[in-house]
This record gives sequence, structure tokens and C-alpha cells, in this order.
Amino acid sequence: MPPISILVFDIFGTVVDWHGSIVREVQAVYPQVDADAFARAWRERYQPAMQRVRSGEIGWTRLDELHRGMLEDILPRFGLEHLDEAERAHLNRVWHRLNPWPDSVAGLARLKSRFTICSLSNGNIGLLTNMAKRGGLPWDCVLSAEVFHAYKPDPRVYLGAAGVFDVSPAEVMMVAAHQDDLAAARDCGLATAYIERPMEFGAAHIKDVSPDPANTYHARDLLDLANQLGC
Amino acid sequence: MPPISILVFDIFGTVVDWHGSIVREVQAVYPQVDADAFARAWRERYQPAMQRVRSGEIGWTRLDELHRGMLEDILPRFGLEHLDEAERAHLNRVWHRLNPWPDSVAGLARLKSRFTICSLSNGNIGLLTNMAKRGGLPWDCVLSAEVFHAYKPDPRVYLGAAGVFDVSPAEVMMVAAHQDDLAAARDCGLATAYIERPMEFGAAHIKDVSPDPANTYHARDLLDLANQLGC
Repeated sequence: MPPISILVFDIFGTVVDWHGSIVREVQAVYPQVDADAFARAWRERYQPAMQRVRSGEIGWTRLDELHRGMLEDILPRFGLEHLDEAERAHLNRVWHRLNPWPDSVAGLARLKSRFTICSLSNGNIGLLTNMAKRGGLPWDCVLSAEVFHAYKPDPRVYLGAAGVFDVSPAEVMMVAAHQDDLAAARDCGLATAYIERPMEFGAAHIKDVSPDPANTYHARDLLDLANQLGC
Repeated sequence: MPPISILVFDIFGTVVDWHGSIVREVQAVYPQVDADAFARAWRERYQPAMQRVRSGEIGWTRLDELHRGMLEDILPRFGLEHLDEAERAHLNRVWHRLNPWPDSVAGLARLKSRFTICSLSNGNIGLLTNMAKRGGLPWDCVLSAEVFHAYKPDPRVYLGAAGVFDVSPAEVMMVAAHQDDLAAARDCGLATAYIERPMEFGAAHIKDVSPDPANTYHARDLLDLANQLGC
């Protein structure tokens, strides 16, 4: 096996806390809304929206635009159908303002000392860049589904990341808090690291973070991964 | 006019010293070669190689591959036809190992404090990422012709950069040491900043760095640009 030289990271839930960030912002701006239910309802529409692109039902569409359509769908259910265009546009960009988990910035800085570290997210390039600049995520390179015009778990995304660096898939490790993302990466020949994020859906909805022995690494958080990788 | 929020940078000659870097490496490894002539001969084939892609004669091809073809063309002229595959591959990746101009890292760090800073180069993503990691170039995002599958001065590259961030072209400023790059960006509605790099082709071939009043800014180097932009 060649040594791993590139680490590519899932973002939503793995590096940033989408649920907690959206809950805090919605609670602050729209205190009448059940922010936990709102965040989960928005996110529930994520895979079905991307599936319309994956299936070819619609052409390549950036996640910002998919998020906006999902938002339009759920606003009436939460009594927010009165929001004007500027309010909707601002709320939709909450995905650019997600906060890193407490270990993320320090963990990435350590991992960056030995590896090339890149996002590899279904988020669009602008979203990921704005998020990184705001949160201090020290990427060597912002890679996105937008570069490959395909959404994970499409193999073109994982193989595209290896292709960008002209290395074999085995020299790339996918880091994610989602076993399905890692399984698809493994099918493409990438190494995989699972990150436990039991609070991804909030403290009221603890997630199963059981290890899968198929993964190359299993880590509590990004600092633990840095420890295991000797960074 | 909306305020400028995104700065996109040409790389070869603007942020890094391709001529000096190649000369130093060739002198060290192949002392019998006229390194100055070698570097210029390689670079002279740059625009014709990309023109084959722009014209549609060949499909999308990364710059690493174009550089390799250009290298194969010039090796015999410099008595280097005996290089084996590993030596050719290593020499071709000298474009990943170009050194920043002395002002680049400090200038970019200052500009980053007020603007989103991105590469916008015909170099491929892997080349630009390796170069940035080695040289300490603190990009918020590595943008490349590879993202848009088009080579500058194709308008898709300049307009693509604005599109990535969902801003109008006037909110983006192209920073380059080449008037033709800036003219193409201006035609797309971007602001432009010219950077003087009189030594781009080496001390023996001083370049004309006269101002063009059509540019939004004219700066001696990136520190001067940061001064003018109040960073």
C-alpha cells in the first residue's frame, strides 16, 4: 500500500456543526420557531434534492440553489411564509456560516503539518470558502462536488479528488462522520477514517457512532485522528 | 459600483518567479544546460499549447500534461534527450515548486485580512495546491482553469470566478503582471490591478511595466497593492 498523502474531509456534520449552528441562528432571529425541528426538516430534504441531480432529472445545480428550494418547501410549515426575498436569501446562507466543532480548527492544523488537507463536500465552492474564512478552517485546497459536477456518493467525486493530485486512490483518505460516504469512498479504493459526531442531530437525537471494522481509522474527533496519525 | 470583495490572482510571473525558479533548479541538476534559454523556451510554448485546447483541436487537458508535451519538445535542443521517465516527470513538476516573489506571502496575508483571495491561474488544481503548500501562499480558495475547463483569456474563467461566489463581476478584481490577462478580465466587467514584475523573464530580459490607465490599480508589488487598498 502506498502511504496516504492527501486527506479529504466531508464537511456538514464532520467538520462543522450544522444542526447546532442553524438552531442558534433560528432561535435568535425567529424565536417563535421550533429551531430543532426546523434544522432537521431542512436537512431531511438534502439527499432527495441531490438525488434529482444524480438521477439526471435536473442538470447540475449548486447546493446553494438546492438549499433554497428546500427552504421554500419548509417555510410554511414553520409559519415563516411571510419572509421577504432578502430574509430568505440571508437565511439560506446560514449554511455558509456554520461553526466548526470545537476540535476542528486545531485538529486540521495538526493534520495539515503532515498531509495535504482538502474539503470534499457536496457544498459548493463559494459556500465552503466563505465557511472556511469565517471559521478559520485551514484548507490547502477547497474541493467540492462543484468541481466534478457530481454529488457524493457518485464515484466521480472520490476518484476526481485522486485525479486532481495525480495519485492513486489508495493515497487519499476520506474523513467523514457518515458510514455511507466512507463506504462509497472505500469502493473507489480510498482509505477511510470515521469521526464520531454523536451530537450531529442535536443532544435530543444522539447518533449511533459504532465502529465499522471496514474503515482504516475510527476516531473520536479530529484531534484524536491527528494523534493516531502521529501529527 | 459595488465594493470589491474578491481578489483573484494570476500566478506564473505574478505571485511566483517561474523563470528564476526553473533557472536555479536546472543549473543545480543539469549544469551543462543554458538554464535561462531553457526556461524561456519552455514558457514560449505555453500559449500555443493552451491554444490547442481553446481552439477545440484537443479536448480539455490539464496544464501538467501540456507542460510535459512542451518539455518533450525542447529536451533534444538542450541535449537532455537521455533523461529517463522518472527524471522527466520530476523535472516537469518544477512548475509545482516555483518560489514566491519576496513580497508575495506577506502581501497576500495582508490582502487576505480584508478580501477573499483566490488563485485564478491556468495551472491545474494539484499544481497550485502543491505550490501553495510548499511556498506558504495563504489562499482562501484555489481556483483554476481546471474548475471551468477553459483557459484564460476565455471569459468563462473570469465570469466563472464571479459565479462561484455569486457576486457581480465588478465585485471581483483580477490581479496580474500581464496586460492581456487584465484586458480580458476587464472585458468581462472585473476590476483590474497590474503588478510590476520587470524581472519575470530574468535580469537579462527586463520587461516593460508601463502603466495602462485602463487598470483600476497599478502596483509595484503585492505589498504596494495592500498599501493602496488600505490593508
